[in-house]
Amino acid sequence: MRPPPPVTTRLDLPAVVALLAGEETVVDASTVHVDDACVRAFDAIDADRRNEMMVLDEGDGTVLGCLQLTYIPGLGRHGQERALIEAVRIRADRRGAGLGRDLLTRAIDRARERGCTLVQLTSNKRRAEAHRFYASLGFARSHDGFKLSL
Amino acid sequence: MRPPPPVTTRLDLPAVVALLAGEETVVDASTVHVDDACVRAFDAIDADRRNEMMVLDEGDGTVLGCLQLTYIPGLGRHGQERALIEAVRIRADRRGAGLGRDLLTRAIDRARERGCTLVQLTSNKRRAEAHRFYASLGFARSHDGFKLSL
Repeated sequence: MRPPPPVTTRLDLPAVVALLAGEETVVDASTVHVDDACVRAFDAIDADRRNEMMVLDEGDGTVLGCLQLTYIPGLGRHGQERALIEAVRIRADRRGAGLGRDLLTRAIDRARERGCTLVQLTSNKRRAEAHRFYASLGFARSHDGFKLSL
Repeated sequence: MRPPPPVTTRLDLPAVVALLAGEETVVDASTVHVDDACVRAFDAIDADRRNEMMVLDEGDGTVLGCLQLTYIPGLGRHGQERALIEAVRIRADRRGAGLGRDLLTRAIDRARERGCTLVQLTSNKRRAEAHRFYASLGFARSHDGFKLSL
């Protein structure tokens, strides 16, 4: 039986913050500065039953990848939730070894077990390799993604 | 002063369900069937402080448009939330009169007032007119949107 997907704890926070900031590799996560706003955001995610960070862990607590799942209730699709995936990152020095596929597959399984009928995500148009990756997981590139910075 | 954006109540539910189902116009919303799953989904949205349906209302309770806002906490962007917009609909017989712009502008204002630093949405690649509309509101079409039905 596949182990339950690890959900981020505060212990993982420095490594996850480094991943999201685009640090190539994190030799020592304890050196990463995590500011108060980030801790508050983590606590908000942690307290929200419709949000979770997932981490891919080497087994010894070393974080190799992460993503965030948000479960969104909606009036369409017979009242079933959709799952939104954001903040997908795999450590730069560990890419190409199937870790991203493992992490995404776990996230999709988790959404399915919860009863979601749709998983969605967006990827920057420049990231052709990521697009092939998502297509290989069965995702359809059916939409354009619009962003407005406030 | 602009009136506060109307948030959907259970009274609006038949009209919103009709809009989402693609009904061209709803002459009498009381004839629309709202199943239990849909009512439960509405209650889930209503009870969740990070989800809200907004409606555009003629003033007499007639629903002309709707959208859903989801406020998503995250570890990036200095711990500020992003707002996701889904389920944008304007009644077919009232399009072209600026109602969509009014509704989207209110949603963006609401996200800004809440402290969100980003608003995002996806639109089907076939909907070129919608894409011009979102661009005219300042959105950048920077991403591709991927969907996986479960």
